[in-house]
Amino acid sequence: MNTAEINILKEIELENPIFIEALPGLGHVGKLAADHMIDELNATKFAEIYSPAFPPQVLIKEDGIIGNMLNELYYLKDVGEDNLDLIVLVGNTQALSPEGQYLVCKDILDFVKGYGITRMFTMGGMAIPQPVENPKVYGAASDEATIELLKEAGIEIRSNDGGIVGASGLFLGLGIRQGIQGACLMGETPGYFIDAESAEAILKKLSLLLNFEINTDKLDERAEETRQMIAKAQQMEQDLINKANTGNADDLRYIG
Amino acid sequence: MNTAEINILKEIELENPIFIEALPGLGHVGKLAADHMIDELNATKFAEIYSPAFPPQVLIKEDGIIGNMLNELYYLKDVGEDNLDLIVLVGNTQALSPEGQYLVCKDILDFVKGYGITRMFTMGGMAIPQPVENPKVYGAASDEATIELLKEAGIEIRSNDGGIVGASGLFLGLGIRQGIQGACLMGETPGYFIDAESAEAILKKLSLLLNFEINTDKLDERAEETRQMIAKAQQMEQDLINKANTGNADDLRYIG
Amino acid sequence: MNTAEINILKEIELENPIFIEALPGLGHVGKLAADHMIDELNATKFAEIYSPAFPPQVLIKEDGIIGNMLNELYYLKDVGEDNLDLIVLVGNTQALSPEGQYLVCKDILDFVKGYGITRMFTMGGMAIPQPVENPKVYGAASDEATIELLKEAGIEIRSNDGGIVGASGLFLGLGIRQGIQGACLMGETPGYFIDAESAEAILKKLSLLLNFEINTDKLDERAEETRQMIAKAQQMEQDLINKANTGNADDLRYIG
Amino acid sequence: MNTAEINILKEIELENPIFIEALPGLGHVGKLAADHMIDELNATKFAEIYSPAFPPQVLIKEDGIIGNMLNELYYLKDVGEDNLDLIVLVGNTQALSPEGQYLVCKDILDFVKGYGITRMFTMGGMAIPQPVENPKVYGAASDEATIELLKEAGIEIRSNDGGIVGASGLFLGLGIRQGIQGACLMGETPGYFIDAESAEAILKKLSLLLNFEINTDKLDERAEETRQMIAKAQQMEQDLINKANTGNADDLRYIG
Repeated sequence: MNTAEINILKEIELENPIFIEALPGLGHVGKLAADHMIDELNATKFAEIYSPAFPPQVLIKEDGIIGNMLNELYYLKDVGEDNLDLIVLVGNTQALSPEGQYLVCKDILDFVKGYGITRMFTMGGMAIPQPVENPKVYGAASDEATIELLKEAGIEIRSNDGGIVGASGLFLGLGIRQGIQGACLMGETPGYFIDAESAEAILKKLSLLLNFEINTDKLDERAEETRQMIAKAQQMEQDLINKANTGNADDLRYIG
Repeated sequence: MNTAEINILKEIELENPIFIEALPGLGHVGKLAADHMIDELNATKFAEIYSPAFPPQVLIKEDGIIGNMLNELYYLKDVGEDNLDLIVLVGNTQALSPEGQYLVCKDILDFVKGYGITRMFTMGGMAIPQPVENPKVYGAASDEATIELLKEAGIEIRSNDGGIVGASGLFLGLGIRQGIQGACLMGETPGYFIDAESAEAILKKLSLLLNFEINTDKLDERAEETRQMIAKAQQMEQDLINKANTGNADDLRYIG
Repeated sequence: MNTAEINILKEIELENPIFIEALPGLGHVGKLAADHMIDELNATKFAEIYSPAFPPQVLIKEDGIIGNMLNELYYLKDVGEDNLDLIVLVGNTQALSPEGQYLVCKDILDFVKGYGITRMFTMGGMAIPQPVENPKVYGAASDEATIELLKEAGIEIRSNDGGIVGASGLFLGLGIRQGIQGACLMGETPGYFIDAESAEAILKKLSLLLNFEINTDKLDERAEETRQMIAKAQQMEQDLINKANTGNADDLRYIG
Repeated sequence: MNTAEINILKEIELENPIFIEALPGLGHVGKLAADHMIDELNATKFAEIYSPAFPPQVLIKEDGIIGNMLNELYYLKDVGEDNLDLIVLVGNTQALSPEGQYLVCKDILDFVKGYGITRMFTMGGMAIPQPVENPKVYGAASDEATIELLKEAGIEIRSNDGGIVGASGLFLGLGIRQGIQGACLMGETPGYFIDAESAEAILKKLSLLLNFEINTDKLDERAEETRQMIAKAQQMEQDLINKANTGNADDLRYIG
C-alpha cells in the first residue's frame, strides 16, 4: 500500500531533470518562491498527489469551490542557459504524522526517480528572531561537491547546527541513501508572516545555481494575497477557539 | 485491509441515489437534521459500519443495553416530487485519527458508489460567536453548477474562507476526485448546545434543493432528548476529571 | 497481520466456557478481583498475549527479573454448582492507542471464540467522588435477558449513562456483533487507590451470577501488595518529572 | 512490511556474538559508552538501519553535510580474554511512537539473531535527583543466573522497581520471549547533561562482565563535544519556540 496516491495527469519525458521541493513551511518561504517560479516560467502540472496522511479536511476556495489538500508536480523543459529540465513539487500541505511524512516523501521520491532525476534542491525558511532588511540564504547539502556549489553562489553554509524537519529534510535524506545529490536552501525569516523578501532571496540563489533568469516583481503581490487568505483562515480558527473556551470543546472538533 | 467494516443488513437496488452525509459535528446540526429526516420519511437501515478508528468504547443506552460506536446507512425511495432515491449516512461518531478519518470516508464512499450515486450533500454546523434568531445556511460545492443551485435555494456561498474539517469535507474532496458533484450545507450555530433551529434551517434548504416536503415540528423535541443524553455523559466525564485532579490520573484512563 | 501475538502454552478443551475480562483500569477493581479468583480457584495459564500496541517498556519484578507487558489467559473447569468452564483474561496493561485497543480486543475475542464461548463478563470500576462504606455494583449488558439476570443478582442497572471505555466496553461491543451475550460489572470506586472493597463487591456478584463460592479474605492483603508496587513506580515517575522540569525534558524521554 | 529498513554494508560471520544496545536515552549514558567502545576497540560498521518511525528530519553535520536519522550496527571479533564476538547497536535516535518502538526493535532483533546471538546487554541511564561523585551502576536481567553475574560484577540489583522504557527495555523483553538471556546496565545520572562519568561507570562494568580492557581517558573529551552539539540544537529549538510564542505557531511546524 502506498501512502501517496499519485494521479498522473500527463505523460511526459524529461532529460535528467532536477527535482525541486517547496512544500508549505516556515514563513511559506519555499512555497512562495516555487509558486512564483511556476507562474513566471509557465510550468505545466503533470501529477497530483493525495494522501491519508494529509489533514482530514478540504479548503473553500474562491466562489465557494472546494479544493482538496494535495501536493502537485509541475515540469519545465529547457530552462535557462543550461537547458535544464525541472520537476517542481508544491502543494497546500504536508503529512501530519511523523510516519506519514516519511512515507509520503518516499513514495514521491520513488515516483520522480522514474523520470531520471539525479539532483535535487529543497527550499524553506530558517527562523531568525527579528525581520532583517536583506535576508540571507543558508544552505546544507548531501556532499562536499554540492557544498562548494552553494558557496560559489554566495550561500552561507550551516554547520553542526540542528536539523531540517519535514519534507525539505526528508527528501535530502532519502536521496542520499539512493545516491542523489542535493541541497536545502533556507531563507532567513521570522516565520510569523508570509515572507516575500526571503522567498525572493532563495529564488535568486536558485536561479544562480541553475543558471536561469526570473523576474521577481510580482512576488510581493503574491505574498499579499497569501497573507489575506491565511488571515481569514486564522480568524475562523480563532472564533472556534473562543467558542471552545466558553462552551463544549468536544462539539467543536469538527465543522460539518 | 479496509478501515471500515461494513455489515450489509439488506440487499437493495436504487436508481441514481443521492448520498447525504450527516455525522456528529458542531452543534450536532447535521446529525439532528438527518436523524429527523430518517424518522419523518421512514427511511430503512440497510448497512452498519464499524471501524478500529472509532473511539475505543461502547455506549450505555436505555435500560442498560450496550450500543456500539457505529455509522449507519439508511435508504429512501421515490422521495418528493422528483421521485429521488436517497442514501443517508448517520451515526454516533467519526474516526478519531486523521488517517482514520480519511480511510473510513474512502471505504464508505467506495461502498455507496456501488449503488450508483452521482451526487452528494454533506451537512454540518458553522461556528458563530452568538446564537441568532434565524440561523443562516452557508454552502460550498464541488463545481460552479452546484454553486448556482445553492444560490437559487437562498444559500449563502462561503468564499476563500477556511476549510471544512472531518467527514463533511472529506466526502466532498474524495467525490471531486471521482467526478461526483456535491455540496456542503452549513447551519450557523454557536456549537456549544444541540441546535435544533440550525438543524431545521439546513433541513429546509435540503428539502428545497431535493424538492421534497418534511414536517419539522418534532425537531425541537428530538433536540431536547439529545441535550439530556449529552448532559449526562458530560457530568460523568466531569466527575472523572475532578477525580483525576485529586488522585492518580493514570488509573483513570479507563473505566473498566 | 494480527495486532495481538498469542503464544499458546497449553492445548485445552473446554465446554461452552464463559469469558471473563479483567484488565487494569479504574481503581484496579477488575484486575484485583480476577487475580484473586485465579489464585483462590487455582486457575491454569494457557496463553500469553503480546502486542506492538502495548506500552514500549518492560517491568522490573522481584529480585531484578524483567517482565514483559502482557495479557494472560487462564482457564478453570467445572467451577461451582453449575460445573462451568471459564476463560479469564488478565494482564498488566491495555493497548495505548485507540486503534490498538480495538485490534487487540478483536484478536483476543477471535481466539477465545475458538474455544466455544457464548457468554462473557467484563469487570471494572465506576468513578464516584468519595469512598463509600459498601461500594455498589453497577451493570450494563448486551441484551434484556442478561439485564434481568443482573437485576436478580442485585446489580444496579446504569441507563442512558455515558459509556464504557477500553477493553471492558470493546469486548462487549465486539461480542454483540457476533451474537455473544455479555455484561459489564462495575464496582463503585474513587479510583485513585487500589480498591479491595470494590473488587470484593464485584467478585461477590460474579460468584452469585455464576453460582460458585469464593473466599475473599486475602483480597485486602493482595490490594496492599499492589498498592506498594504502584507507589514505587509512581515515585520513580515523579522523580523523572521533577528532573524534566529542571533540565532537558527531551533527554528524559527514555530510561535506557 | 518491515518497520526497520536494514541496509547491510558488509557480509560478516561471527561466533556466538553478544548483542549490545546503546541508543540515545537519559543523559546519553549508554550511547556515550558504546560510541567510545566502538572508537577505542576499532569496531567496524556492517549495517545501517532506517525507519518511517524515526523523527521526520535530517541533521546538519560538520561543514553543512546532511546526515540521516539512523541506527547503526558495528561488530568486533575476539574481544578480551574470552575472545568474544560482539554486535553493537548505536545511533542518533529511537522510534517516536510506541508501536514504532516495538516494531523497530523486533525487526533489529530478528536481524541480529541471524548472526547467532544468545546473550545481550542493554545500556542506559537511571534518573537520580542530584549529580553524585561516583555514579553507581544498577542492573536488571532476564533470569536469575544473569542476576548472579551482575552481582559478582558489583552491580546493584533493582527490584520491584518501575520499568525500563524504550529500546533498552524492549530488546530484553523480546529476547526473553525467544530464550535470549540478557541484562540492562543503568548508570546513575541526573540526566540533564551528557554524563561522561556515568558512561564510564557502565563501560567499566561491561568490560568486567565481558572480560576485556578499555581505556576511558577520552570519554570526557567526547562528552564535551556531544554537549556542544546538543547546546546548539537546543538554542535553535528555543529560538523557534520564542517565535512561536510571539507569532503564528502553525507556520513554525516545519523548517523547510
